[in-house]
Amino acid sequence: MKEELTIVKVGGKIVEEEDSLKQLLTAFTAIKGYKVLVHGGGRSATRIAAALGVESKMINGRRVTDSDMLNIVTMVYGGLVNKNIVVRLQALGINALGLTGADMDVIRSHKRPVKDVDYGFVGDVDAVNGTLLASLIRKGIVPVMAPLTHDKQGHILNTNADTIAGETAKALAADFNVTLIYSFEKEGVLKNADDDNSVIPYMNENDFKRYIEDGTIQGGMIPKLENAFEAIHAGVNKVIITKATAINGLSGTHIEK
Amino acid sequence: MKEELTIVKVGGKIVEEEDSLKQLLTAFTAIKGYKVLVHGGGRSATRIAAALGVESKMINGRRVTDSDMLNIVTMVYGGLVNKNIVVRLQALGINALGLTGADMDVIRSHKRPVKDVDYGFVGDVDAVNGTLLASLIRKGIVPVMAPLTHDKQGHILNTNADTIAGETAKALAADFNVTLIYSFEKEGVLKNADDDNSVIPYMNENDFKRYIEDGTIQGGMIPKLENAFEAIHAGVNKVIITKATAINGLSGTHIEK
Repeated sequence: MKEELTIVKVGGKIVEEEDSLKQLLTAFTAIKGYKVLVHGGGRSATRIAAALGVESKMINGRRVTDSDMLNIVTMVYGGLVNKNIVVRLQALGINALGLTGADMDVIRSHKRPVKDVDYGFVGDVDAVNGTLLASLIRKGIVPVMAPLTHDKQGHILNTNADTIAGETAKALAADFNVTLIYSFEKEGVLKNADDDNSVIPYMNENDFKRYIEDGTIQGGMIPKLENAFEAIHAGVNKVIITKATAINGLSGTHIEK
Repeated sequence: MKEELTIVKVGGKIVEEEDSLKQLLTAFTAIKGYKVLVHGGGRSATRIAAALGVESKMINGRRVTDSDMLNIVTMVYGGLVNKNIVVRLQALGINALGLTGADMDVIRSHKRPVKDVDYGFVGDVDAVNGTLLASLIRKGIVPVMAPLTHDKQGHILNTNADTIAGETAKALAADFNVTLIYSFEKEGVLKNADDDNSVIPYMNENDFKRYIEDGTIQGGMIPKLENAFEAIHAGVNKVIITKATAINGLSGTHIEK
């Protein structure tokens, strides 16, 4: 039987505020079995870009990454946010290793082709080296992954953290029984966006289609759930969408085949 | 017989300028056998600090690291400089892995006690995990080390890159036949600071003492050479002080027991 592995993706807001980061890392530390943390950092990037006089341009909720912004996300995601998480996990007894996709060639991508929109130095993932990650994880190392990849041609590429979590989960599904947890500010996928008690506890793909049709699920939650079902199809055991302080696998919206 | 390992330390100026970085990485790629790169980044830190309105305060040529500056060096050393080197080495076929001392608990340090000067969040190295580094290196991984360490209590500490290179060399001397190369702007240790042709080709400890006494060697070169001899005493085979474009082990000042 395959061993359990939990991959937790945490968004920018949670890792960038002292109190919520502490709560998150304590909850992460309590997860049993093998684990991986994938983080964002968009708010810090926006804040530091503004302080440096660089404008953050977003299209469809996605950051446009020109060369100045690439330097900023490399600093902020790969340095500031990543190393602050690593150093705190080390203090909690977790043997964390901060990684971008360039480190040990862990995640290779290509620059997104320009169609309607030029997102700049943004990478679409080609391959995650699951074998390498699995061997590190089995040694007790906990990868902490920044949302940066590379093209093996010398270019760092800004890559969506949800995508990194999903692709990493798929790559590790061959070696482990993977639970992928997307954590965010809300309790789960809500039936009523204004009511935190309206969490949908369980969803399969038919439910998802129905919820899109009747308008219950819309906006940014749709690509998140599409990523989730794609992961399930690729062998990931379970995807959970939940609050960052409730990543023990019991709360939130559970997505299975 | 122990296998050969070369540790190259490169200063800020070299890794921060496009042309010199390219030359350096090409020369580094050509080094045979196992290798490690240790980098600085002070000039970029100063530049970005200034752009963010944070003053760089230096005492005796060393940076004072308050909490704002700690965030900046974490971003710049751990993110911007480190990942730019890693991604370029990957393009050159080198399986680079960027590390701070916090990653996998590779280098542990303590905050320097305040005596005459309060340097702030600056770490003095306690231990380098040579066994772990050796096992990575034997797998073909090339560590790229940023000048940051941690205290295992949740704090990142700014640490001199020469010290990191020296301590890493000493920790790896048990496993490898280590050559430690300190690269900088000049051809080597010069008899006459204005004459690049006055390189001292070979130096032992008696020579060093004599050169200090007669004033040939002074200023920042003294701690660099003290580090070098300390490494030699701790089992490092050879220390070379040379120009960043001449790291093939043939040029510069060679320091042996």
